[in-house]
Amino acid sequence: MAESFPMNGGDGTYSYTNNSQFQKQGFDLAIGMIKEAITEKLDTEITGTFQIVDFGCSVGPNTLFAMENMIEAVKNKCILQGLDSKNMEFQVSFNDHTENDFNTLFASLPLDRQYHAAGVPGSFYRRLFPRASINLAYSSYALQWLSKMPDEVSDRKSMAWNEGKIHYNGSPREVVDAYANQFEKDMGVFISARAEEILSGGLMILIMPGIPESAAHLPYSAGVLFNFLESSLMDLAIEGIIDKAEIDAFNLPIYFPTDEEMRKVIEKNGCFSIEMIEFANPKSPVNGSLDADSWIMHLRAGMDGIFTKYFGYDVTEKMFNKTLSKSEEISHFLQSGHFNSTQLFVVLKRK
Amino acid sequence: MAESFPMNGGDGTYSYTNNSQFQKQGFDLAIGMIKEAITEKLDTEITGTFQIVDFGCSVGPNTLFAMENMIEAVKNKCILQGLDSKNMEFQVSFNDHTENDFNTLFASLPLDRQYHAAGVPGSFYRRLFPRASINLAYSSYALQWLSKMPDEVSDRKSMAWNEGKIHYNGSPREVVDAYANQFEKDMGVFISARAEEILSGGLMILIMPGIPESAAHLPYSAGVLFNFLESSLMDLAIEGIIDKAEIDAFNLPIYFPTDEEMRKVIEKNGCFSIEMIEFANPKSPVNGSLDADSWIMHLRAGMDGIFTKYFGYDVTEKMFNKTLSKSEEISHFLQSGHFNSTQLFVVLKRK
Repeated sequence: MAESFPMNGGDGTYSYTNNSQFQKQGFDLAIGMIKEAITEKLDTEITGTFQIVDFGCSVGPNTLFAMENMIEAVKNKCILQGLDSKNMEFQVSFNDHTENDFNTLFASLPLDRQYHAAGVPGSFYRRLFPRASINLAYSSYALQWLSKMPDEVSDRKSMAWNEGKIHYNGSPREVVDAYANQFEKDMGVFISARAEEILSGGLMILIMPGIPESAAHLPYSAGVLFNFLESSLMDLAIEGIIDKAEIDAFNLPIYFPTDEEMRKVIEKNGCFSIEMIEFANPKSPVNGSLDADSWIMHLRAGMDGIFTKYFGYDVTEKMFNKTLSKSEEISHFLQSGHFNSTQLFVVLKRK
Repeated sequence: MAESFPMNGGDGTYSYTNNSQFQKQGFDLAIGMIKEAITEKLDTEITGTFQIVDFGCSVGPNTLFAMENMIEAVKNKCILQGLDSKNMEFQVSFNDHTENDFNTLFASLPLDRQYHAAGVPGSFYRRLFPRASINLAYSSYALQWLSKMPDEVSDRKSMAWNEGKIHYNGSPREVVDAYANQFEKDMGVFISARAEEILSGGLMILIMPGIPESAAHLPYSAGVLFNFLESSLMDLAIEGIIDKAEIDAFNLPIYFPTDEEMRKVIEKNGCFSIEMIEFANPKSPVNGSLDADSWIMHLRAGMDGIFTKYFGYDVTEKMFNKTLSKSEEISHFLQSGHFNSTQLFVVLKRK
């Protein structure tokens, strides 16, 4: 069973709801491309009921904003085709892990929504919907989460043991390969499951952090920022607050694929044509105009869950506070000439 | 917008999860009839995806148990018809108010479930699903909740003002009529919405407390038990803990229809044929073998929400404690020769 580390629920200081503006920026950059893809590529019959699914929706306003924009684009397509959209009904399904805070998500649904809403709990690394029931699948900033840590990286006897580290950035080749293999396996499962669920002619739009193949060897912002968390944890180990073995055993199940890695999985599956696969913005949302503190808050909203699960609340609190105390160093790094991780934008059509 | 008073969430002492055994008994009594209805009356095509919906599912094990039994019955029907059920997929949608504890419900879904699960938030007194998308609709012990209190009964200037009372049992004709009118209006909306959502040949199975037309003038257990809560509240008013005006302004939005009232609404709508409308058990689950304390706990799991919303936590706590202190009197009443409220069982087929 896939592991689950939900975004922070509710609407408090560290909630995902109040700390997901980076994802929102990513969406804003992509919205034009999404609308264009729907207008030009969507090829299912758009009469009767039209089902849109957000895979890995989390909570907060981003998923609602995305769904409304996509409905708008489908309606506009109807108008362009001279179809009457008045009798059309939209079903929007919000998928995320069972542990996601669906109560908060449901409470945030607009009362005057123009669609039927449903929540679908469960890992997207398995079947979730009936066969051929989805017209438009969407996933934003969710697929970088692997179904689990690669087994080898926390195995002391393996060549891929990731000693003293929590991510593959700056790790030996064997560690990077273990992560890449896990990504290939997971994404393969995701694509297969969706191939059964999406109607012929239906689209799948995937937005996630990624690295251009040409830059795969360069350090990138997200990876280096994980290294800052890593060094905060090591500080805590030196202070005797945690055991270094705990850090050795822990690895973030997060992977930033290249476009070529993504292409390979899709082509191996064979059920989808690749309509578009590109990097939506050469600059990541992390740039000079955003301060390091906001970045750490953002990271915390998405990652409190996994760190708390492994290290407990106190250590997680201390780790983030230590990282905040390094914000000047992080700011300096953010301004410097490193390579920004960037947004991979993929449009697939079900054959 | 319909008012919402969700069952107690979580799995604590007063949770619906741990206090819904009476509803379970009701279901056990009905299960044979449900299976028979599915076998003999269900008339939609049962290939591809088969959608079952529980309207007003709440939390807890009852809805899961009901859904599994119905899936079993549909599969058996396939076997009887010589159909291959292997390629068939089941979609089960769990509907309840947005305020229902969907997080707890989702966490209780069996990992090895043989169906795709979805939660659909919103009052069932409106459209919730796409047109012609449901094969089998089900609702158990939910439709006795009206969409709101009838306006007149808390209006001091109305002939239907229900002074010093919280329910229509033992009230003047005008009060009873106001409740009956609200039921007729609400049930009309419910039936119309479902008529759009259910496929031709699809079934709707409704289980709810009701009163046979022939016994409509007799006192019945649930109504009299509401009178016990009422008298506990009046005790608190006499003690100066609450203002009597608060009791005057409050009325439980709960109605127990007769079979004839139900028939009238369905026939007025005209989209469903009545395949069965009867009382499933002449004795209610409330009988000599069940003690008054359990009954009060049961009542509390379902009604904490509404009382807390109107009177606050402290008054609600005191009201239930006062009622518990009357359990001998209530037990005596439960043993006596009053008329038991009983379970209305309705099977409708979409024309």
